[in-house]
Amino acid sequence: MAHSVERICILALGLIGGSLAKALRENGYAREVVAWGRREATLKRGVELGIVDDYRLELAQAVAGSDIVVIATPTRIAESVLEELAALTRQGVIGRDTVITDVASVKGNLLAAAERAFGAVPPNLVLGHPIAGSEKSGVEAANAALYVNHRVILTPEAATDPAALQQVRAMWESTGAEVAEMPVAEHDAVLAATSHLPHMLAYALVDALAGLEERQNIFRYAAGGFRDFTRIASSDPTMWQEISLANREALVEMIDLFSAQLGTLRQAIVDGDDAAIKACFTRAKTARDNFAQLLASQNQATISDE
Amino acid sequence: MAHSVERICILALGLIGGSLAKALRENGYAREVVAWGRREATLKRGVELGIVDDYRLELAQAVAGSDIVVIATPTRIAESVLEELAALTRQGVIGRDTVITDVASVKGNLLAAAERAFGAVPPNLVLGHPIAGSEKSGVEAANAALYVNHRVILTPEAATDPAALQQVRAMWESTGAEVAEMPVAEHDAVLAATSHLPHMLAYALVDALAGLEERQNIFRYAAGGFRDFTRIASSDPTMWQEISLANREALVEMIDLFSAQLGTLRQAIVDGDDAAIKACFTRAKTARDNFAQLLASQNQATISDE
Repeated sequence: MAHSVERICILALGLIGGSLAKALRENGYAREVVAWGRREATLKRGVELGIVDDYRLELAQAVAGSDIVVIATPTRIAESVLEELAALTRQGVIGRDTVITDVASVKGNLLAAAERAFGAVPPNLVLGHPIAGSEKSGVEAANAALYVNHRVILTPEAATDPAALQQVRAMWESTGAEVAEMPVAEHDAVLAATSHLPHMLAYALVDALAGLEERQNIFRYAAGGFRDFTRIASSDPTMWQEISLANREALVEMIDLFSAQLGTLRQAIVDGDDAAIKACFTRAKTARDNFAQLLASQNQATISDE
Repeated sequence: MAHSVERICILALGLIGGSLAKALRENGYAREVVAWGRREATLKRGVELGIVDDYRLELAQAVAGSDIVVIATPTRIAESVLEELAALTRQGVIGRDTVITDVASVKGNLLAAAERAFGAVPPNLVLGHPIAGSEKSGVEAANAALYVNHRVILTPEAATDPAALQQVRAMWESTGAEVAEMPVAEHDAVLAATSHLPHMLAYALVDALAGLEERQNIFRYAAGGFRDFTRIASSDPTMWQEISLANREALVEMIDLFSAQLGTLRQAIVDGDDAAIKACFTRAKTARDNFAQLLASQNQATISDE
């Protein structure tokens, strides 16, 4: 089999990194897929499950000789990994021909971290975000088909080497993903609107109702609509605490946009303004029905949390 | 077959009334199920589909001789139907042995309407609310199994005849529903929390984002979590406009409770208070996971909107 690249290195084998590794190994895109991580048990399990060919416990050994390095750690750790990669670049372990990319949900904080660590955004760095996930997590849940028909957003900068961008694009396309490009600020604003804000609303709602629940047992009378609406409040608290702070500025802006809208609706209810209430609901229904059609046409049947 | 009652009259054949009629006809609870409504085409279709035995276009003819009269019209129309039933009671068309009940999502406004129409809450009136629904609507969507394992809340008053309450309870239990009783105010508060507030949040969110969508095409990058979170924003705008005003007081109270919670979370994000953010998300996840288990144990697999 002709491989597109020799070696891809995945930094941390969770659901996202593990699924990417598995897809790249199964489709033969890389001759070798190696993993690095903090817990050897997880890395060993990755080899046992056939998700990666091998692993290294030393970051320098993992990245040396890799064509592409994918940072797939949790958001907060990704910032310190960038610092370590900058140090390895200064030491000559990582060359300009090694492409560095990532999978985190927020891009602005990592761009800033890269600027701090490298002095300027390096041409071989291509930040990215696969919009896919699952209710499951961890290496055991790795799924080679996770990215099929899902979007991956890449956020190249002016300094980005077009060849590096093309490498990352081709890697994701080999997994069945559809790749889009946009500026970092636009990515973070779009994700704040369609993912981070909804998670905040779901968490705030369920937390508020949990207080009532203690007194009234209200959840006994909730039905399927409530189950779907609150599903994302079952997402991992640590991951979402990190995302909420990583995208603080855009998220607070969206919370304020939403709060203003809710305040307008509240006032219409207080005023008994049928026409205003119905206009709001009708606009929302139209937009939501259009979105559901769009999603169906993209064939994204998987439940995705992020 | 021994029937439990002679005749049940369903006022309006939508999804809720039609499904109840179909269940009662199939399980033989009533010897005869008749419908009344404004549009003859719908009533004829109900007979063709075997949902009811017969129909009447005159309300007096429909209710006369019925053991149970079920008001299954939209919320706003239910208030005027109560007035008509009060007039028919004064005319002797409806006797004290005819039980009147309903299926609306809010109970306080109908209790007040009954007090106005009848002078006082009549002993033969038992207000109720089946917590079931579907994304589909109308007589064509009528489903005899809609209420199986779903909750029906009855809200008897001090003046309610225990025999009338027992009649309504037995009718619902015959459809496979699980019947609970609670005061009107408690019902309206619980539903405001677990159903009406989530609908307002979903509508307000999608309406707010629809404004951004026009400029940025953001929905292209939304995934399955957003689809589930916003599903209820595809609900019928007229029905929800009526519900939001019918339950105005409890709903505004819940909007304020939620807004305070969201404001606290927003401040924690602004302050970068990891511990407070994570505590909120963790409490919410615990409550939501418990709710999901509860719902699974109740075997409510149907998608229910209300």
